[in-house]
Amino acid sequence: MKSMVFRLPMSNPGDMSALSELIETGVVSASDIVAVLGKTEGNGGVNDYTRGYFVDRLMTMLSTHLKEPAAVLQERIPCVLSGGTEGVLTPHYLVFARVESQAETPSHADGRLAIGTAFAKKTADHEIGHKAHALAIAEAVKAAIEDAGIEDLSEVHFVQVKTPCLTTQRIDAFADAYPDRATVSPEKSMALARAAGAFGVGLALGELPMAAMDDRLFLQDFEKFSNRASISSGVEVVADEIIVLGNSAKWTGNLKIAHRPMIDALDIEAVHQVVADLAFSPGYQITPAEQERVKAILVKSEPDRRGRIRGQRHTMLNDSDIYCQRHIRGALGGLVAGVMGDTRIFVSGGAEHQGPDGGGIVAVIAEAAL
Amino acid sequence: MKSMVFRLPMSNPGDMSALSELIETGVVSASDIVAVLGKTEGNGGVNDYTRGYFVDRLMTMLSTHLKEPAAVLQERIPCVLSGGTEGVLTPHYLVFARVESQAETPSHADGRLAIGTAFAKKTADHEIGHKAHALAIAEAVKAAIEDAGIEDLSEVHFVQVKTPCLTTQRIDAFADAYPDRATVSPEKSMALARAAGAFGVGLALGELPMAAMDDRLFLQDFEKFSNRASISSGVEVVADEIIVLGNSAKWTGNLKIAHRPMIDALDIEAVHQVVADLAFSPGYQITPAEQERVKAILVKSEPDRRGRIRGQRHTMLNDSDIYCQRHIRGALGGLVAGVMGDTRIFVSGGAEHQGPDGGGIVAVIAEAAL
Amino acid sequence: MKSMVFRLPMSNPGDMSALSELIETGVVSASDIVAVLGKTEGNGGVNDYTRGYFVDRLMTMLSTHLKEPAAVLQERIPCVLSGGTEGVLTPHYLVFARVESQAETPSHADGRLAIGTAFAKKTADHEIGHKAHALAIAEAVKAAIEDAGIEDLSEVHFVQVKTPCLTTQRIDAFADAYPDRATVSPEKSMALARAAGAFGVGLALGELPMAAMDDRLFLQDFEKFSNRASISSGVEVVADEIIVLGNSAKWTGNLKIAHRPMIDALDIEAVHQVVADLAFSPGYQITPAEQERVKAILVKSEPDRRGRIRGQRHTMLNDSDIYCQRHIRGALGGLVAGVMGDTRIFVSGGAEHQGPDGGGIVAVIAEAAL
Amino acid sequence: MKSMVFRLPMSNPGDMSALSELIETGVVSASDIVAVLGKTEGNGGVNDYTRGYFVDRLMTMLSTHLKEPAAVLQERIPCVLSGGTEGVLTPHYLVFARVESQAETPSHADGRLAIGTAFAKKTADHEIGHKAHALAIAEAVKAAIEDAGIEDLSEVHFVQVKTPCLTTQRIDAFADAYPDRATVSPEKSMALARAAGAFGVGLALGELPMAAMDDRLFLQDFEKFSNRASISSGVEVVADEIIVLGNSAKWTGNLKIAHRPMIDALDIEAVHQVVADLAFSPGYQITPAEQERVKAILVKSEPDRRGRIRGQRHTMLNDSDIYCQRHIRGALGGLVAGVMGDTRIFVSGGAEHQGPDGGGIVAVIAEAAL
Repeated sequence: MKSMVFRLPMSNPGDMSALSELIETGVVSASDIVAVLGKTEGNGGVNDYTRGYFVDRLMTMLSTHLKEPAAVLQERIPCVLSGGTEGVLTPHYLVFARVESQAETPSHADGRLAIGTAFAKKTADHEIGHKAHALAIAEAVKAAIEDAGIEDLSEVHFVQVKTPCLTTQRIDAFADAYPDRATVSPEKSMALARAAGAFGVGLALGELPMAAMDDRLFLQDFEKFSNRASISSGVEVVADEIIVLGNSAKWTGNLKIAHRPMIDALDIEAVHQVVADLAFSPGYQITPAEQERVKAILVKSEPDRRGRIRGQRHTMLNDSDIYCQRHIRGALGGLVAGVMGDTRIFVSGGAEHQGPDGGGIVAVIAEAAL
Repeated sequence: MKSMVFRLPMSNPGDMSALSELIETGVVSASDIVAVLGKTEGNGGVNDYTRGYFVDRLMTMLSTHLKEPAAVLQERIPCVLSGGTEGVLTPHYLVFARVESQAETPSHADGRLAIGTAFAKKTADHEIGHKAHALAIAEAVKAAIEDAGIEDLSEVHFVQVKTPCLTTQRIDAFADAYPDRATVSPEKSMALARAAGAFGVGLALGELPMAAMDDRLFLQDFEKFSNRASISSGVEVVADEIIVLGNSAKWTGNLKIAHRPMIDALDIEAVHQVVADLAFSPGYQITPAEQERVKAILVKSEPDRRGRIRGQRHTMLNDSDIYCQRHIRGALGGLVAGVMGDTRIFVSGGAEHQGPDGGGIVAVIAEAAL
Repeated sequence: MKSMVFRLPMSNPGDMSALSELIETGVVSASDIVAVLGKTEGNGGVNDYTRGYFVDRLMTMLSTHLKEPAAVLQERIPCVLSGGTEGVLTPHYLVFARVESQAETPSHADGRLAIGTAFAKKTADHEIGHKAHALAIAEAVKAAIEDAGIEDLSEVHFVQVKTPCLTTQRIDAFADAYPDRATVSPEKSMALARAAGAFGVGLALGELPMAAMDDRLFLQDFEKFSNRASISSGVEVVADEIIVLGNSAKWTGNLKIAHRPMIDALDIEAVHQVVADLAFSPGYQITPAEQERVKAILVKSEPDRRGRIRGQRHTMLNDSDIYCQRHIRGALGGLVAGVMGDTRIFVSGGAEHQGPDGGGIVAVIAEAAL
Repeated sequence: MKSMVFRLPMSNPGDMSALSELIETGVVSASDIVAVLGKTEGNGGVNDYTRGYFVDRLMTMLSTHLKEPAAVLQERIPCVLSGGTEGVLTPHYLVFARVESQAETPSHADGRLAIGTAFAKKTADHEIGHKAHALAIAEAVKAAIEDAGIEDLSEVHFVQVKTPCLTTQRIDAFADAYPDRATVSPEKSMALARAAGAFGVGLALGELPMAAMDDRLFLQDFEKFSNRASISSGVEVVADEIIVLGNSAKWTGNLKIAHRPMIDALDIEAVHQVVADLAFSPGYQITPAEQERVKAILVKSEPDRRGRIRGQRHTMLNDSDIYCQRHIRGALGGLVAGVMGDTRIFVSGGAEHQGPDGGGIVAVIAEAAL
């Protein structure tokens, strides 16, 4: 199996022209597309409809090519959108494709990019953000790892999960049966769902033991975290969607992935380590020639909840005009863009239990060095 | 003359406790304070009252120590505030002091931080943002350079100007006499005043010839710029206030300043060059030990008006929720903080003709290397 | 011809379920739909993609019913979206339909709601916001009036125009040929296009003479205005789309329209006059029983550019956090909702030359009183 | 005792010139000032420093006149600021004064405006937002009522309370001793403190029984409320400050107060009832002549937490760009300004248990009708 990644521009959240053209010119076959990750120029908050707009347009477009209803595609192809291109960031999307290549025998002992996907079995509403949810996600992550053909868990570098959260209506519906769980707000349920996702990924990857699957630790014990989980949650999400990215000797192509945890929002060393892992030349910024090798930059971030970064006060948590996640995306986007020499970065906020507290994760997909 | 710089925290825009304590414990004498630069946690826009709040509290506090009315001090001590601590940035202020030290003979052939200030003669309202304004600022910059005792213009590294702009009322007042200049909006007059300031600094520093002092070039010909000007404009400003920072062999102390133009918002090399100019050890991030040497980090920035950074689209100019200058401050703040390992950065937006188009300037004041 | 208006809810900007159901249950025939006006929950600014999302979903849905490509429908059915449901406002849309009813003979001497639409011939980019643009719109308004079968211009009560504006790219394209027109900003071109629209409507309705079609008056002489024009402009708009609403004895059905100019943002009397024109019972608020008669509430508004309302200062024009049009929509929405007892109000900002300076227009469509 | 109310403009949050002039020209004596209520043009959120700026400038100014330290005055004169002048609202402040007038014998059987103030005894941090807090506030309200000389509780029309809330630091400090109360967020503690304030006022006024002083009802049972409480909470507040406004036959002057609960955000009838209570002529809007009688307009409001107003969806609770309290202030401000013909309205958000759920309170102080 050969993996391919296309990093595509969009002029607005409904612009599918770049992918359309790739399909129409035969560069990629619509039926080989297995997952999409995108960064749209909305506010990334509750009322960000650029995510739904993109998904709607993408599935409608793929539907014409694949002759399948958009609704069916939506249940097969994970499509995770993150709103918010603060600061220098560029709206763009990543299309992941798997191509059967029987002729070619894998010959890269160091492995090539492996892609796996899965959808979790439905979690009952009153279990969302609780232990049962984490376990269901863990199962699905295992299925996606298997789908990717990865046998050694250390070969997994990035697990993207898109998970549902609760609305007032859905909370009301189970309030009589589970009164103690019905005091949660929709916003809190989003954070709890992300926590459940991170714990589930941690369990599946062996980063957290089964004994840690205790929902009293969710959003409480930030010493518990996964270094490879990236979880997003939204009211519009119906099922848990999983995308696993790693390296495997079973795969062909010329792509590899690497990742590093970021200890805080100033951890520029982590970014340099990732590019070193991918055998880029040392330097303050990747050279234009080598920038061509980069196919995807993935970052997960969180404003330090203690209100300080390296001992100095920050104001992200107290700003009633701009949501704190918009602040941190803009700042981390600026830092990572400076090292990579490129503004096409998928930076997502809400990193509870995803990387060290106050920090996050950076991952890069690039062509293997010659 | 010995120069001193104090970088002080504030818990809110009215918090003068850190400077109060320095004065009360005799670390600095109130009468030695010659200028203040501060970064407050407002929105940095028209209705940002954190700037006025800070100035008001500072002058009231200094007034008790100096037994002079606050209003008098305000006309003697330039105090430039920039609102907006987006992303990782920390609210803080820089206090510049000059200490008479007759005992000490300057012995640093490479020079030490020199500080000069001046107030420009008043520009008539209909001339604000025009040639006469630029010329008045150029005169005042020369006076501040002389005040700093700098003889070689190449020793000037950073010129901060605070300049008035027009309100609707003030425009109306000259509308009959100068109808062609009365179609300007207050916002446009802010940008024109910044342009006049940059041209004035450029003329005083020999970066621009007298022939360029043509207001038809303001906000039009961005090939004309100063690499050392940092201009801010606001409705609350009464007079043009100038702070010149450079190095001079006439000064003592252990501080030095360096600066570099930034070609665009990803120009991380410029930041590394500045710290190299100040003899910091090479590395992706300044080490904690060497961070102690840093006394001030000054950045001027601008969202690229062509809508692209290194060929990729950015969305700063089209965001109706967050003002574009807030975006760029957050992004550049993140990048510079990553290299410096410190979030106490004075990042100011509105960099028309201040550094290359779409770029800006970075300057650092640090203790001289041993 | 019988006119029908459906006021429909949406759960999000892509939700067409209410209209789908009306079509599927035969309440309205897709082929009778001639225009749509909608209020979506975006920010109403440059980066408000809820408008495009709605249009895209609407045309795709109608396309399935009408077996015509969405692109063709978009050139036939005016669809004007206004973003921003500030304060108490409810996202909703108005569907206008014309039903052939040969059996029925018009018998309402006082007239019934008449609906006409037209698309203007394309204005060259360098003429957008200038005299030629106003004249083209005037022609199209006349065509729409004729399409509505209205002979007496006093029977026209509301003219909605959607008009293109310029982008940086389009301005650049004519910069060499028309340098003096190329200094306009995209934002200014939006305002100029709205002015051209208002002048065009004023000419077509006889409110302004041909001698006033002088683009030096646009955005300058606010004594020149139309009391029945509502103009919106956007970068996504391709052609000038016109919807004319009036009363005519040639039409049947049970709907009527009335309108009044609002002298300022506190003109509650204007709202009471409109409902009186439609024979509602006097009272501080329309009674729940009579609220059933109301089918559409249309408001055009503008923050007073002189910074005062009835002598008191307002802060809408100086707010760098919230765009001034969002402020005025929220305030006027609250006032009109208080009188009407209903939050489903189409309030649009940007009312230059549309109603008195600092004021606007209010119009209501309601079932005729028995 | 004679009551006086001055409604004063400010050009910015630090502008005390209007009150200065009144004091300097002898219109009011600084020593007669007993309370101040103000509406500043900040965002009304956590990082709104316009409130602190105003209080600082006011107390400094009064300090020069009264020869007492500003810090002492701050503990004697309640000064309640509400940030946010959304929509048509005008920044302004209300100065309440009590003048000894022994010569004059009260002769108004219907009573005249009575003003009382008090500061509550300090509530321990772990009790803030709990029953003990409500009881302490109730005691202070009783003291303020006594200070106002009001004997009949039905004569109390408006009770303004300013109450502290918790910060992360303060919560941490009692976390070991009261672990179950330490899970509260600062934001939640603000809402709980407002609830405690409303319950305390309700108890003092006899609107709620002692049996209702159960903190399990706070933010849970919205059937429990006071129709005369207006509570604001902030991190900068040190003590509970109380201002009681009512009518009493013991007072002289020509002012009276009236109030009405608002059942929801469209309750325009409540506004008309208040002005009727004060014997204004009936009409859709108060006439300019009668507007002169109005001295203060006070409104408390809340976005309906069920997401609907009269059955129609609103979007205030889902807006990640603009805080919901900004939305509701703008809408209610527009409605009340329409009836009063005046934009100088003190509209405050956060009305939990203050008036009916989803509604609020409106009160007006006006000169008695001749």
